[in-house]
Amino acid sequence: MPQVSTPAPTRDSYLVGLIGSGIGPSLSPALHEREADRQGLRYLYRLIDIDRVGVGPEAVGDLVRAARDLGFDGLNITHPCKQLVIEHLDALAPGAAALGAVNTVVFEDGRAVGHNTDVTGFAASFARGLPDVPLERVVQLGAGGAGAAVAHAMLTLGAEHVTVVDAMADRAADLATALDRHFGAGRAAAATPDALPALLGRADGVVHATPTGMAAHPGLPFAAELLHPGLWIAEVVYRPLETELLRTARALGCATLDGGGMAVFQAADAFRLFTGREADTTRMLADIAELAGVAGAAR
Amino acid sequence: MPQVSTPAPTRDSYLVGLIGSGIGPSLSPALHEREADRQGLRYLYRLIDIDRVGVGPEAVGDLVRAARDLGFDGLNITHPCKQLVIEHLDALAPGAAALGAVNTVVFEDGRAVGHNTDVTGFAASFARGLPDVPLERVVQLGAGGAGAAVAHAMLTLGAEHVTVVDAMADRAADLATALDRHFGAGRAAAATPDALPALLGRADGVVHATPTGMAAHPGLPFAAELLHPGLWIAEVVYRPLETELLRTARALGCATLDGGGMAVFQAADAFRLFTGREADTTRMLADIAELAGVAGAAR
Repeated sequence: MPQVSTPAPTRDSYLVGLIGSGIGPSLSPALHEREADRQGLRYLYRLIDIDRVGVGPEAVGDLVRAARDLGFDGLNITHPCKQLVIEHLDALAPGAAALGAVNTVVFEDGRAVGHNTDVTGFAASFARGLPDVPLERVVQLGAGGAGAAVAHAMLTLGAEHVTVVDAMADRAADLATALDRHFGAGRAAAATPDALPALLGRADGVVHATPTGMAAHPGLPFAAELLHPGLWIAEVVYRPLETELLRTARALGCATLDGGGMAVFQAADAFRLFTGREADTTRMLADIAELAGVAGAAR
Repeated sequence: MPQVSTPAPTRDSYLVGLIGSGIGPSLSPALHEREADRQGLRYLYRLIDIDRVGVGPEAVGDLVRAARDLGFDGLNITHPCKQLVIEHLDALAPGAAALGAVNTVVFEDGRAVGHNTDVTGFAASFARGLPDVPLERVVQLGAGGAGAAVAHAMLTLGAEHVTVVDAMADRAADLATALDRHFGAGRAAAATPDALPALLGRADGVVHATPTGMAAHPGLPFAAELLHPGLWIAEVVYRPLETELLRTARALGCATLDGGGMAVFQAADAFRLFTGREADTTRMLADIAELAGVAGAAR
C-alpha cells in the first residue's frame, strides 16, 4: 500500500502540564515556556488543577493515563498527588523511589516513568549558592513533602547529620527514620520546636522548609534571637524571594540562599527530562526574580 | 486571605488536537501551527489517534472529556468519530446539527460545543475558486461523510438541484432524503454510477467526493469520455492536489477547483473557533501547496 509521510514539523514540540490542587498561581508555566521560547521549541505547559476539574487527589492515575493518551510528553505533579501517583506509574527513577514521592512523570514509548526533581533541584541550587559552607550539623525546619525532598538533598550533598524539626512530632520522627534507613544509621534525628534554642546554638546551618514567610503565612519560623552570624540559612519559600527569615539573617551577616534557586533547578531538571535539552539556569534565575517580583507586587 | 496572582503569560496559548483513526499523515498540525506562528501565538496541535491509544471509536466521549479536563481549548474530530461524538457534547451549532456530523469541538467555560467546518470550509473554497459558475444541475459523486458535508455546502451556496451518485444505492438515497428534508423537497435526488452518462451530459458541474485519485486509490472516478468542456469540476481530494480527474478536466478546458481550498478553509474556520482570530487563508493556501507537495513526493 502506498505510504504518505507527514511533512516534518517546523519545530520540535512539547506538551507538558502540572497536576495538583490550588496551582493557579504556579510560576512553572512561565519558567518552562520562557526557556523553551529562547531555545526555539514549540512548548505548552498547562495547569491541570484537580479542584477545577472537580475530582479528588485519587483521580491522579486517571489524569496521568489521559495525558499519555492525548499526547502529553510529561507532567509535573504536586501536592496532594506526589505520593498517590506512584502506584499508577510503570517505573521509578532511583531518587524518586528512595524519597517515595514523584514530582515529574515522563512518557516514554507509552510507559510512565516517575522522577523527583525537587531533590536534584534543591541540591543543585545549594551547591551553586552555598558551595563552601560547613555541613556537619544541619537543622531543618519542616518534615512535610518539601522537607522530605530537601532532607534527602542535604544528605546526598554530604551533610553529616540533619535534625528534622516539626511541631508534628510523629511526622518528624517518621522522616528521620526514613532518612536513617536510606542514608545509614545516625545521619538523622527528629525534634520539636522547643529544642530549637539548643539545636541552633551548635548548628552550622538551617534549611527552612515550612510555609512561614509566604504571602499567606508572614513572619519568622522561630524567634529572631536564635539566629547568629555563624549560621548559613537556606530557604525553600520563593514567593516572596526575600522572606523575613532571609532579611533578618542577612542583616546579621549570615550566608543565605533564597528559594528561587530550588524552583529554577527543579524546573530545569524537569525540562531536561521532558526535552532532552539543557536549560539555561542563569537565564531562568533572572526569570524567577522577575516573576516572583510580579507575583509579590500583586498581593 | 492574601491573593497571589499569576504573572501574565508572555503570549496567548492554545492547545488543540485531532481525534480519529489512521490520522498520522494529517496536514492539520502543520496548517494550524504555521498560521499560529505567523500570528505570534503559542499553539500546539496534537494528533490523538484512537488506533495508537488502543481504543475504539465509541471511546471518543471519554477522550473529549479528558481533553477538556487537561486544558485543551478545542478538538477537531474525524473518521470514524464525527457522528459518535455528538451525544457527548453540550450543544451543537446549527450547521453541525443539520448535517448530523461534527468535525470541530470548542470548549467554552467547561461546555463542549460541536461545529462543522467541513461544510463552511467547502462553501468558502467554492465561492472563492468557482465564483461565477452555473449551479442549476450539480452531480455529486460520493455519499459518505465528506459527500454529506459538501452536498450541504452546495445547497447552502444556492445550487438548485444536486444528484448524489454512489455505488451504494441506499447510502445515496438516504443522503438525498436528508437533503430534501433540510433544504426543501425536490432539491436532491439519488442515483447509481450507471446513470452518470445521462446525468453528466446535462449537468453544469461535478463535485467529486470519493477517495478515487488519492495516492492509495489512483485513477479516474468515471470514464474520461464523460467529461466535456461545459462542466466545472470541484474536487475534495487534496493529496495530491492535482488528481487525475482535475488534470484530465483541465486539459479539456473545464473550470476546476482542487481540494486544497476545502482543507484550508475548514482549518481556518476551526482556527477562528479555537482562537477568535481570523486566519490568513492566502498564506495557508501557499502552505498546503507546499505541504501536499511534500507528502505527494514521499509516496
